[in-house]
Amino acid sequence: MTETSLNIAEDDPVLGTDFAVEMVRQMRALDAYGTLDNHSAAQVLDPFILTKEQKREVPIIGDPDEIVVSRVKSFYNAIAALIESECGLMAVPTINLTHEGFGRALITVGRLVVMDKTLRDVHRFSFPTLSKMKDEADKILSVALEIVGEYPKAAGL
Amino acid sequence: MTETSLNIAEDDPVLGTDFAVEMVRQMRALDAYGTLDNHSAAQVLDPFILTKEQKREVPIIGDPDEIVVSRVKSFYNAIAALIESECGLMAVPTINLTHEGFGRALITVGRLVVMDKTLRDVHRFSFPTLSKMKDEADKILSVALEIVGEYPKAAGL
Repeated sequence: MTETSLNIAEDDPVLGTDFAVEMVRQMRALDAYGTLDNHSAAQVLDPFILTKEQKREVPIIGDPDEIVVSRVKSFYNAIAALIESECGLMAVPTINLTHEGFGRALITVGRLVVMDKTLRDVHRFSFPTLSKMKDEADKILSVALEIVGEYPKAAGL
Repeated sequence: MTETSLNIAEDDPVLGTDFAVEMVRQMRALDAYGTLDNHSAAQVLDPFILTKEQKREVPIIGDPDEIVVSRVKSFYNAIAALIESECGLMAVPTINLTHEGFGRALITVGRLVVMDKTLRDVHRFSFPTLSKMKDEADKILSVALEIVGEYPKAAGL
């Protein structure tokens, strides 16, 4: 991965948001072999971004490898961490994947399911831009907080 | 597996309960190769039962194989099916296991987590008797229904 091929600019302002900071933290947390140690934030998050052209090159059918799965986990772990810091209650992510890349992602707060997503084609998991990725996370976050607000007792408030 | 080695008697009255009938149905559902086609209910459920002596023979540390994992799934699927038939709302089981046999089993009803169990040593998943297995399922079922009763709106009632 050379600098020039990055889909995220090193000075992208989105890299300074809570979401991106948490994403980088989660990616480093799952990076058992330290392969990301010398990577900048833009480099760490770059694999999440595939342009339309790049995505077209990924085969439609494929098994997700460990690296892609850890990306999916980082994404939902980061969202869970943001939910937690917003509402002050523990948010637990659960990712359930078959070998074929289908599955379910759940985030629970207390007795409450605050996110429930069906996962498909996980080997193609990506976003067109960093800002679209943040939008998706923000959407999930705000729905989750709404659900906690609606059922505060079940969430443990 | 010869008849004489079974831990469940062919005429065990527990085999006639809703739980056991559902368990057998779930085991057959996951039996893609039809290996259980000629098995009686007692034979199908027998692998769930390990006497103290038999359990002692299972190594403490071990990776769960596909057969054990499908047993764990059958167990929680059956409980989910019973929850569903009791409260009339869809109950969705999610089993999340690492290769080492650790993980989490969840059952959700609507937005509500009605069961949340940490799984450990899945390769040793078993019960001392069929009746103890049913007791465990009954306990989970009654707690789940209690939670639905407590938060009916979150469950979707």
